[in-house]
Amino acid sequence: MSSALLGKAELRQRLQETGEALYHHKHPFHLRMHAGELTRGQMQAWALNRFYYQSVIPIKDAIILSKSGDPAFRRSWRKRIVDHDGDGNQPNSPGGIEKWIQLAEATGLSRDLVLRGKAILPGVRYAVDSYIDLVTRGTLLEAVSSSLTELFSGNLIALRMDALRKYYPWLVPGLAYFQGRLTQAPEDAAFAFNYAFEHATTPELQEVVVACLRKKCALLWAQLDALYYSYVEPGHIPPQPGIFQPEVA
Amino acid sequence: MSSALLGKAELRQRLQETGEALYHHKHPFHLRMHAGELTRGQMQAWALNRFYYQSVIPIKDAIILSKSGDPAFRRSWRKRIVDHDGDGNQPNSPGGIEKWIQLAEATGLSRDLVLRGKAILPGVRYAVDSYIDLVTRGTLLEAVSSSLTELFSGNLIALRMDALRKYYPWLVPGLAYFQGRLTQAPEDAAFAFNYAFEHATTPELQEVVVACLRKKCALLWAQLDALYYSYVEPGHIPPQPGIFQPEVA
Repeated sequence: MSSALLGKAELRQRLQETGEALYHHKHPFHLRMHAGELTRGQMQAWALNRFYYQSVIPIKDAIILSKSGDPAFRRSWRKRIVDHDGDGNQPNSPGGIEKWIQLAEATGLSRDLVLRGKAILPGVRYAVDSYIDLVTRGTLLEAVSSSLTELFSGNLIALRMDALRKYYPWLVPGLAYFQGRLTQAPEDAAFAFNYAFEHATTPELQEVVVACLRKKCALLWAQLDALYYSYVEPGHIPPQPGIFQPEVA
Repeated sequence: MSSALLGKAELRQRLQETGEALYHHKHPFHLRMHAGELTRGQMQAWALNRFYYQSVIPIKDAIILSKSGDPAFRRSWRKRIVDHDGDGNQPNSPGGIEKWIQLAEATGLSRDLVLRGKAILPGVRYAVDSYIDLVTRGTLLEAVSSSLTELFSGNLIALRMDALRKYYPWLVPGLAYFQGRLTQAPEDAAFAFNYAFEHATTPELQEVVVACLRKKCALLWAQLDALYYSYVEPGHIPPQPGIFQPEVA
């Protein structure tokens, strides 16, 4: 625990160290993905389950927006909802959710299976729902801070796109989501970081910012734990009816 | 989906089949436990993580109690809170939570580590919190139905006590929790089942009862998924600071 108020560069450094240690770029499931070691069935399980996370992002952002009394903040944060839900001109400028569905379709899954949501792992659902819970119960500063994982997503996405093109070429038609995030994520991260720096005006509040980043890292990590346990190890898919069963090796 | 209203024996049969398929008595972690294949460190991880579930049971039951306008229902349900929190005469008649701490101590864990709660797996926390969410958002019928896993816990506990005595004799001083549940669980299950049968007065409501049992089974199962992934497979403990690291083989 630091006891002095950190300057901007110092706070960024604290967050950077936290992300280096806890962000899911080092998760065994991602390491396998980036080494080309996942089967198509495992990539399907990933795309399908991760869709649940994608599908609640605008809900999460609307909760954050609802916590602010400042129209300027709300106008800025609204961008995220537009990015994910799209501008209504779907075929020409699909939002992030639509692009993720296209990624899932590129793995060979049907849009219907993805949208129904019945097939996702309970463990993934609980982790994602904990994100909604975190922003619902938290202060605006806590909710904004939980989005600071975007500081690290740019590097992960760049690395991932290279790996996907190399090892999973059948996914290439579905990469628009990541292409979009390459520019969106840094903008979002810069806004959230500036907000956190300006509003965490005591050492204690700066610790809260770091703790929220840690919590967010944990819930991203836990989603991949559930995926790895169920789809990398044989015989571990939960017995709940309807859970996704890969057909392809 | 059945379309006719089930009689009492038929509803019990539906629930029995659901439990047979989905209750966590068949989880690979339990199969290993009951075959004597878990290390002491793995048993510690189980006792520690499962404590988080135990610790929220009276909170869950208080939420259920708060949903009823019927003093007779509340008096009956109150028994569960007393069973878990104890009557205040701790040394002579400890409640279920205190008994679980004694079980954890019998594995070699310190009471302090157990009570602090920092060391539990995020995946276990999310699954348990989803139970609180289920009873908070659900109707009284849904909340009561989610407790119907107690229909199956008697058999599991009897089997487990035999296995624990045989393979993990150092746990024997900590078995009072299970001893108590052997009589409490059947009483609780009978009350909940009768309540569900009487209040699920349409085929649709009977399906809701079964669905809530399924949801509860899923969240029990997911806790063991997280334990198995992190503590049976090497190298899979999440990087979050403070997570329990077994010292003993």
